[in-house]
Amino acid sequence: MRKALVTGGAGFIGSTLADQLIAAGVEVVIYDNLSRGRRDFIAEACANRGVEFVQGDVLDEELVKRSLEGCDTVFHFAANADVRHGFDRPKVDLEQNTMATFVVLEAMRSAGVKRIAFASTGSIYGEPNVFPTPETCPFPLQTSLYGASKLAGEGLIEAYSHGYGFVGVIFRFVSILGERYTHGHVFDFCRSLRKDPSRLRVLGNGRQEKSYLYVGDCISAMTLAMDQRLEPGTVLIYNLGTEETIVVDDSIATIAAHLGVTPELEYTGGIRGWRGDSPLIHLDCERIRALGWRPTLSIRAAIRRTVDWLEENPTVYDELEAA
Amino acid sequence: MRKALVTGGAGFIGSTLADQLIAAGVEVVIYDNLSRGRRDFIAEACANRGVEFVQGDVLDEELVKRSLEGCDTVFHFAANADVRHGFDRPKVDLEQNTMATFVVLEAMRSAGVKRIAFASTGSIYGEPNVFPTPETCPFPLQTSLYGASKLAGEGLIEAYSHGYGFVGVIFRFVSILGERYTHGHVFDFCRSLRKDPSRLRVLGNGRQEKSYLYVGDCISAMTLAMDQRLEPGTVLIYNLGTEETIVVDDSIATIAAHLGVTPELEYTGGIRGWRGDSPLIHLDCERIRALGWRPTLSIRAAIRRTVDWLEENPTVYDELEAA
Repeated sequence: MRKALVTGGAGFIGSTLADQLIAAGVEVVIYDNLSRGRRDFIAEACANRGVEFVQGDVLDEELVKRSLEGCDTVFHFAANADVRHGFDRPKVDLEQNTMATFVVLEAMRSAGVKRIAFASTGSIYGEPNVFPTPETCPFPLQTSLYGASKLAGEGLIEAYSHGYGFVGVIFRFVSILGERYTHGHVFDFCRSLRKDPSRLRVLGNGRQEKSYLYVGDCISAMTLAMDQRLEPGTVLIYNLGTEETIVVDDSIATIAAHLGVTPELEYTGGIRGWRGDSPLIHLDCERIRALGWRPTLSIRAAIRRTVDWLEENPTVYDELEAA
Repeated sequence: MRKALVTGGAGFIGSTLADQLIAAGVEVVIYDNLSRGRRDFIAEACANRGVEFVQGDVLDEELVKRSLEGCDTVFHFAANADVRHGFDRPKVDLEQNTMATFVVLEAMRSAGVKRIAFASTGSIYGEPNVFPTPETCPFPLQTSLYGASKLAGEGLIEAYSHGYGFVGVIFRFVSILGERYTHGHVFDFCRSLRKDPSRLRVLGNGRQEKSYLYVGDCISAMTLAMDQRLEPGTVLIYNLGTEETIVVDDSIATIAAHLGVTPELEYTGGIRGWRGDSPLIHLDCERIRALGWRPTLSIRAAIRRTVDWLEENPTVYDELEAA
């Protein structure tokens, strides 16, 4: 890899990946519309020679194409990453995940760039019967528009690989935690406890079993997978997660203990926190582990690291309030 | 079922289904943009009381919504059904299959209609390792844009069922043959032999193993599945095919013998007829058979019936030439 374009490159995972690529000597084009991404996440990266920032939307095929000049690889991370509100605004996932992936693939095809890494999700397994869930589990049913839109993106990448000789590497993540984390369970809990440490409203019954992975471990897995020599037409799919899970109640206990607070918990009830929520996510990650990868942080350590970062960067809450 | 809207209702399968629904006393709205559908396929149907024809595009959400008045069920058959040219015009499948399915679902949601039958395809299994391929086979990789676009449609329907209480019944077809058949292998072979019975150009090596189903059998399976009482949120998926397969060479021999011609065969070579072609399609149909369904025609009988219909309706070739 000599030069890579990172869509969503100013976001949580994208900006952390960009930093890692730059450190490894790769030229980077950070492509982001700054709708959720943040300038301060890429300020340091942009000070490096060989790093370019393009403020643009991934639905703008012409701009993506122009931005691809000289690139050999795309990390396609721009997405609507909000699983929870899919059923309130169903078009968002279709446009920002499915159609955007198509536009990126078309821009790549016309620019002659054929290697793509794709941030997919464990949500595409819906509510599986096999745990931990391997990449080759029985053909799943979608239970969220987010999962459906990412599945559609995967299908497009696979077809482009088969038909146009692309190389597609698809990563199905659990939820990612760590520095620059700006949405999800831990974010919501920390924000709420900052406002009022005496009580906490919990979506569901608190027994949903989740899986998390530290962002640094997520990125080391991705760069390891992308460093393989892959023939045109190859599609590889990797689950990324830890071997443990944590129930929401224990996640809350970890956060509260780390913050030194003792909130009273109020549950909305039900086995799902919202329509499309998975009561249990646990991915089988043997395939990526076979490459030698191991996560360095446990889920609890990743939660504590995230809480520390949020405490040190409370402005991420302010901006959300203003939006 | 009291009143149903059939998208693609003037097409091959849609118009045959419409006839069947009308015969069963169901009111029918035939919705078709007539890009591939034909007025003569629905002329007889439209003479019936309680049958309405709307000429419109499935991407027109407002028109679909208005056309849904009084309906309880949608048969969503409008699609780009051309697998072969996906890689020449990649946007066609995305728009006409994925996005169109989204628009139909949104129109249904705003009209309060929540039962949908969807014409999907065995192509979504890509190149599977399990034959005959069951609905629950290992999570497949897409090898065609057609398959990818239908997979995306399935995912949307599943998510709408889970999130909005829709009932979704998904049918994964093999290739369908019979009266009103207007594209595919048998069509191409018959058209070519009509022009020049002395020779026939064959895409691939002639050893691709295909599966076909007679249109009447396809429709009896669908109406049987839709007659079940299904709770909101239910998703059912059925493979539809016969228990046999036929290799392309034998399909050609059946056609040639029936027409009384002896063409010289010229093969383009390779195990696939085109990029995205499946060297072997054979679906496990135990799930639909468990409802008591059985096909009435063998593949060879279905081919002969199709050849007869094409011979009696040669104008279907003319119109294609003119287009």
